[in-house]
Amino acid sequence: MKKILAIHGPNLDLLGKREPQIYGYETLADINERICGEAKKLGMACDTFQSNYEGALVEKIHEALTDYDGILLNAGAYTHYSYAIRDAIAAVKKPCVEVHLSNIHAREEFRHTSVIAPVCAGQIAGFGSYSYILAVHALSELCK
Amino acid sequence: MKKILAIHGPNLDLLGKREPQIYGYETLADINERICGEAKKLGMACDTFQSNYEGALVEKIHEALTDYDGILLNAGAYTHYSYAIRDAIAAVKKPCVEVHLSNIHAREEFRHTSVIAPVCAGQIAGFGSYSYILAVHALSELCK
Amino acid sequence: MKKILAIHGPNLDLLGKREPQIYGYETLADINERICGEAKKLGMACDTFQSNYEGALVEKIHEALTDYDGILLNAGAYTHYSYAIRDAIAAVKKPCVEVHLSNIHAREEFRHTSVIAPVCAGQIAGFGSYSYILAVHALSELCK
Amino acid sequence: MKKILAIHGPNLDLLGKREPQIYGYETLADINERICGEAKKLGMACDTFQSNYEGALVEKIHEALTDYDGILLNAGAYTHYSYAIRDAIAAVKKPCVEVHLSNIHAREEFRHTSVIAPVCAGQIAGFGSYSYILAVHALSELCK
Amino acid sequence: MKKILAIHGPNLDLLGKREPQIYGYETLADINERICGEAKKLGMACDTFQSNYEGALVEKIHEALTDYDGILLNAGAYTHYSYAIRDAIAAVKKPCVEVHLSNIHAREEFRHTSVIAPVCAGQIAGFGSYSYILAVHALSELCK
Amino acid sequence: MKKILAIHGPNLDLLGKREPQIYGYETLADINERICGEAKKLGMACDTFQSNYEGALVEKIHEALTDYDGILLNAGAYTHYSYAIRDAIAAVKKPCVEVHLSNIHAREEFRHTSVIAPVCAGQIAGFGSYSYILAVHALSELCK
Amino acid sequence: MKKILAIHGPNLDLLGKREPQIYGYETLADINERICGEAKKLGMACDTFQSNYEGALVEKIHEALTDYDGILLNAGAYTHYSYAIRDAIAAVKKPCVEVHLSNIHAREEFRHTSVIAPVCAGQIAGFGSYSYILAVHALSELCK
Amino acid sequence: MKKILAIHGPNLDLLGKREPQIYGYETLADINERICGEAKKLGMACDTFQSNYEGALVEKIHEALTDYDGILLNAGAYTHYSYAIRDAIAAVKKPCVEVHLSNIHAREEFRHTSVIAPVCAGQIAGFGSYSYILAVHALSELCK
Amino acid sequence: MKKILAIHGPNLDLLGKREPQIYGYETLADINERICGEAKKLGMACDTFQSNYEGALVEKIHEALTDYDGILLNAGAYTHYSYAIRDAIAAVKKPCVEVHLSNIHAREEFRHTSVIAPVCAGQIAGFGSYSYILAVHALSELCK
Amino acid sequence: MKKILAIHGPNLDLLGKREPQIYGYETLADINERICGEAKKLGMACDTFQSNYEGALVEKIHEALTDYDGILLNAGAYTHYSYAIRDAIAAVKKPCVEVHLSNIHAREEFRHTSVIAPVCAGQIAGFGSYSYILAVHALSELCK
Amino acid sequence: MKKILAIHGPNLDLLGKREPQIYGYETLADINERICGEAKKLGMACDTFQSNYEGALVEKIHEALTDYDGILLNAGAYTHYSYAIRDAIAAVKKPCVEVHLSNIHAREEFRHTSVIAPVCAGQIAGFGSYSYILAVHALSELCK
Amino acid sequence: MKKILAIHGPNLDLLGKREPQIYGYETLADINERICGEAKKLGMACDTFQSNYEGALVEKIHEALTDYDGILLNAGAYTHYSYAIRDAIAAVKKPCVEVHLSNIHAREEFRHTSVIAPVCAGQIAGFGSYSYILAVHALSELCK
Repeated sequence: MKKILAIHGPNLDLLGKREPQIYGYETLADINERICGEAKKLGMACDTFQSNYEGALVEKIHEALTDYDGILLNAGAYTHYSYAIRDAIAAVKKPCVEVHLSNIHAREEFRHTSVIAPVCAGQIAGFGSYSYILAVHALSELCK
Repeated sequence: MKKILAIHGPNLDLLGKREPQIYGYETLADINERICGEAKKLGMACDTFQSNYEGALVEKIHEALTDYDGILLNAGAYTHYSYAIRDAIAAVKKPCVEVHLSNIHAREEFRHTSVIAPVCAGQIAGFGSYSYILAVHALSELCK
Repeated sequence: MKKILAIHGPNLDLLGKREPQIYGYETLADINERICGEAKKLGMACDTFQSNYEGALVEKIHEALTDYDGILLNAGAYTHYSYAIRDAIAAVKKPCVEVHLSNIHAREEFRHTSVIAPVCAGQIAGFGSYSYILAVHALSELCK
Repeated sequence: MKKILAIHGPNLDLLGKREPQIYGYETLADINERICGEAKKLGMACDTFQSNYEGALVEKIHEALTDYDGILLNAGAYTHYSYAIRDAIAAVKKPCVEVHLSNIHAREEFRHTSVIAPVCAGQIAGFGSYSYILAVHALSELCK
Repeated sequence: MKKILAIHGPNLDLLGKREPQIYGYETLADINERICGEAKKLGMACDTFQSNYEGALVEKIHEALTDYDGILLNAGAYTHYSYAIRDAIAAVKKPCVEVHLSNIHAREEFRHTSVIAPVCAGQIAGFGSYSYILAVHALSELCK
Repeated sequence: MKKILAIHGPNLDLLGKREPQIYGYETLADINERICGEAKKLGMACDTFQSNYEGALVEKIHEALTDYDGILLNAGAYTHYSYAIRDAIAAVKKPCVEVHLSNIHAREEFRHTSVIAPVCAGQIAGFGSYSYILAVHALSELCK
Repeated sequence: MKKILAIHGPNLDLLGKREPQIYGYETLADINERICGEAKKLGMACDTFQSNYEGALVEKIHEALTDYDGILLNAGAYTHYSYAIRDAIAAVKKPCVEVHLSNIHAREEFRHTSVIAPVCAGQIAGFGSYSYILAVHALSELCK
Repeated sequence: MKKILAIHGPNLDLLGKREPQIYGYETLADINERICGEAKKLGMACDTFQSNYEGALVEKIHEALTDYDGILLNAGAYTHYSYAIRDAIAAVKKPCVEVHLSNIHAREEFRHTSVIAPVCAGQIAGFGSYSYILAVHALSELCK
Repeated sequence: MKKILAIHGPNLDLLGKREPQIYGYETLADINERICGEAKKLGMACDTFQSNYEGALVEKIHEALTDYDGILLNAGAYTHYSYAIRDAIAAVKKPCVEVHLSNIHAREEFRHTSVIAPVCAGQIAGFGSYSYILAVHALSELCK
Repeated sequence: MKKILAIHGPNLDLLGKREPQIYGYETLADINERICGEAKKLGMACDTFQSNYEGALVEKIHEALTDYDGILLNAGAYTHYSYAIRDAIAAVKKPCVEVHLSNIHAREEFRHTSVIAPVCAGQIAGFGSYSYILAVHALSELCK
Repeated sequence: MKKILAIHGPNLDLLGKREPQIYGYETLADINERICGEAKKLGMACDTFQSNYEGALVEKIHEALTDYDGILLNAGAYTHYSYAIRDAIAAVKKPCVEVHLSNIHAREEFRHTSVIAPVCAGQIAGFGSYSYILAVHALSELCK
Repeated sequence: MKKILAIHGPNLDLLGKREPQIYGYETLADINERICGEAKKLGMACDTFQSNYEGALVEKIHEALTDYDGILLNAGAYTHYSYAIRDAIAAVKKPCVEVHLSNIHAREEFRHTSVIAPVCAGQIAGFGSYSYILAVHALSELCK
């Protein structure tokens, strides 16, 4: 049975915690539940992780060397400058799907560049929390 | 019943036509069949279109004004410079999902920029023909 | 009697066709009628043309070599990258007035550059459909 | 009755004053007369002003706050760097038409950028002194 | 017997058609005749094609997949921005010789960059219509 | 007793003069009164000056050579391009505090660069007219 | 009673610890004491925090969602590249005053850009530890 | 008898006025005297002018249309951005020698670019007040 | 006796842990042993440290203020963007030798820039783990 | 009888000298023989020259002032930065054909720019040693 | 008695040698004679040197370490890229006056940058061979 | 027995020759002696070479094709622009160690880029003449 790792970067712990009447009531816990549920449906086990620390994200990615078949990663703002995370992904040589809630290509200029994209298998951006569900399916294909 | 339009840009008519033993036997017709099949499963009708002409793509997108609920678009190389296609998408005000077979962010520098991204709902890139299946699902969410 | 050619580029066929209560009921046909009416008042004959195809625009401009005394051109999004249209204008050596409905210099960065401007006589931008009326007058001056 | 203000920037006081056999005999006074004549025909009153001082131009624009319905502005070389004039135009919130004798987009690189364009209604460039006549008409439309 | 395809892009249909006393009387038909004559001398069959449509050029290049051993291409202004043509050349995997009448590296800045060069075998520029004759020889070498 | 000079650049004479119900009723005279009042509280004398002329601002700054112990300067739009003002500040060698009503770093790109900052002691921006009060305090510290 | 949070980023823990005869004897503890004293005078409660970890700074800022009325932030070198901190500030939607000991606009080129400035209320830079005192006053105004 | 005009731009009125024990006792009046003395030796009459106002400099240059045979210009900081002064020099069509006290190419980056250089006959920079003497000689040659 | 500190940044903990048959069996522990052995031979004591956390690296560098005579630093990917680490090195004022396993100047563009180089004594790159041995020698020279 | 000069720049003396089983056995002497043979066939005399010294290449080009009717130049790496060679070519005013063995436009970024191209008649690149044969023919045309 | 060295770079040996009826009959020998004559008048001895070799220029500049009091240098095209010459000038620490026949700031973009300017005392450009005479005077001042 | 070649570029012949009381008494001869002594200790033979001529450096590097096992190269200022030297190194396919006396990454901007680095094995910079000793050791490792 394949096992995947869903990683969430900085500020994503706030999801659903502020002004839910505006931003929705879906918390990161809810999203993780949906991710793991979808993974299960596709016959995969799933772990989740969130950190605001670049170093912690790097080390969690390292675990994929031995413990996971693929990574689903929303690196948050680190997407745009963390070459450390890029190097970590490149090192573990497991398929990594880059995920974004919003369409980063339609936002501020600095969000158009993803320094981790060149070492990821693919990118899914712009579909809100549904981006994660799509990513689980993509990862499932890549892990076949 | 929702109706979507899958549009393929320049050079995509060659899919599966050259060196199938290397690039695979999947032709654009095959992909279109899979797209429409998946759409049907999700309760949506589906039309497909391919052209190497920028003008033809612009005009097909115009049809979405009155005939479609959403667009699935792989604009091929036009992705990187066709502001005419960008304006067409912006004009019809229907959700458009940008699709790419390869991870354009991991290829040559000029492919990192998508001039149509700012007017699309989201982007899915890097999963081969499976990118299209993911896009059908994404569009289904957006058309809800 | 002088004869002018009014050319409209990509997406301008949509004018007045979508949400007229918002964007106005003036269609491209209406605008063409106003252009030709104004030309007539100034003693000039007038033909009009619209295409979403870069190649078609290039070939129409070629006709000015033998059939027209001046060109009125709203190249739409092609304004910003069509060196083919630029070369066509330069080749026919007839005065060409560049027209834009909106003030392109006040919009997105990529719209600030017109690659056809260096081969046009002048530019009129920002006055809605009235830009065309001004352009007819300008062309009339240039064709004197 | 609407009242407009025609402002001319640096070096435009030299018009018609040097080598008239080459550059023409039309002085700034002549042009102002034509501008005001055309304005009158269109039922508008008109004042004119020229200065080589950036500060004087800024202060004249300020007068439009209370005394004018629209501005016709050829800012000369200040077009390309005077953010002070830009701020003045933005402050008075009256329609401003940017005018240029020559097609600035076809000249030296530094003349392609107008820092005042983003706060003007539109731009007319390249038709010699006739640019002013077109601008009077444009302003008349905008003041309706 | 090898068979080559000579393709001419936008505005090249005007060759010899305007002001022949200045630009010469050599039309595109004349040039095509010289190209095919030279090809024949070198034992190669030759077809020719001209279009102002980017899409038509893309599709003609596709024909080389099955029908030609090499391509001789003057893409005109598309040279500088048509990534669609670049992808087409890359896809058919037949040797392509890039030709230009003028020395594009000695003209306006935007003509210094050829987006198709990286997928062409070589480039010949600056020798007027004789560039084509040289290109036929080059292609003959490449098709050996 | 220390004596400071508060200088206001282009367009700041309009403060409180247009649409007070929107922008507030505080005029430049009001602000100057607050500045001098605060200076007095801190034991400093204070003069104020406003001009839309770059040259006038340069010359006023020169007076600090002999007449003032420090300068409080809101150079308005000149902040972004007046190397003449920069040289004036550098020449008089008195502490100068750069002030802005709005947070220039959060506005248009061109406002992010201050060419006078490298010769100022510090910068205070974004607190509306209260920026001036803070600047008086800062200058008081610097003049100790 | 309003409550504010003063946050210090990387390397600021060294203040006053090295070569005090040169850099001064004022430690971060001293500065925090002055900050809180000034806050108290203005009727506000105050907490302080220092970390060299980007993740820790992000999480501390998150606390302002529920526990603080405003933030005073010297992000140290993170100012110039931490989009994670920027996103955190934007998320908590409490007024944030950016503080710098030195005038960052007068130092090395890379220090001229603050990626957090666009989401802060204002910036105070260049007045040594007195910058903090000014910031407390600014925050007091913003929290009114 | 030839007549030349020596123009000094912003901040040059301060020469010799501050800290003479450091910067020297030579005032602008002294320099003007040396310039006119040297001109006289070479058989030329000479007028001098200084202003901190860009507009005043523009208008003084205009006087060369009818009253002077050549211009000696140290535009101070305006050298780097005043396209208005550039246009004035270009308009009067009299030889203009650009002068700088310091070697502007060896100072801050922004001083390496002179926007007036393209319309001047030549440039002399770096020799202190002796630059002016050299410029008088150069102008004498150009006016022959 | 001199005492040095060898610091390793992100992802370097993976050395020797993945695919040793390809990347070699040398782990970071092995390298540290060689470093300390070489240091000992040169009469220096040596401590080592690795972290994936930028904050932890900053704090370890701080220890050099009081506990070490020199630093040997392979900052991994942080080399290219961590101004926080740069500031830490600059603060402790002990000689720091920058080390890289690979020749960063021969890899991707973003690796050509080291933001920490300007505050380091020197750089050694490209000799695999032997780079560290060379760095120990270099540091020994610098600490003499 | 026309006389041409074939010049080879730096490192071209190594042709055929290293690993001939890989790079081919064709030495520069062989190529020169082919060039001169082809020139002879076309009724032209031919001299050849190679140097790794920029100065020597400049001086050889000077000889074309009096001794040659045209130049065939492969400037090797000097192509990309030798403005001295560019000036030499411009000075002798004889047609110069730029030659490259490889397609420089398809290699590293720095090889895309030829600083000598703007003063050459044309460019032939990408056909290996056959590029020289084509260049002889081109030069023959130019010398007619 | 002071002794100066006048150095001429690449292509300057051609002066007066081609088309004298157009470019003038003044050869480099003539110019050298004038330079030395002028130097003599000012009480200085003078040697001259010309080379097209960068290395030869570097070595001649080295001689100034022991044999000359100042250098007059027209580095020709090397001006724009020879950091080797720049380093040589910086090393000998004798005043060096940069000379150009033409106004390099008014020519092609690449000639606007002088990489040797930052290590020269001053620059004189644009006065034809008279530039050298001015430079002798400038050097005489610098050597006082 | 391995044999290495130590090459020194422009201006390095001046080492120790000027102001030895400031720059040290170590001449290039001294350094060469140390290099060869160290090489001998490591069991390698060593030749040395210095030239200010780019062409001479290129040709010396060529000798490594047949006569040396590795190269130690301080290319001086040529480091930053000599693509000819780069091509030479790439051609001989022997390990080359790039050496610099100073830390080029901490000096002027133009020294941060080494165009030869991409074809060198590694780089050592910043340790004065000791950089050479480290390079001998590095080369010894590479030649094993």
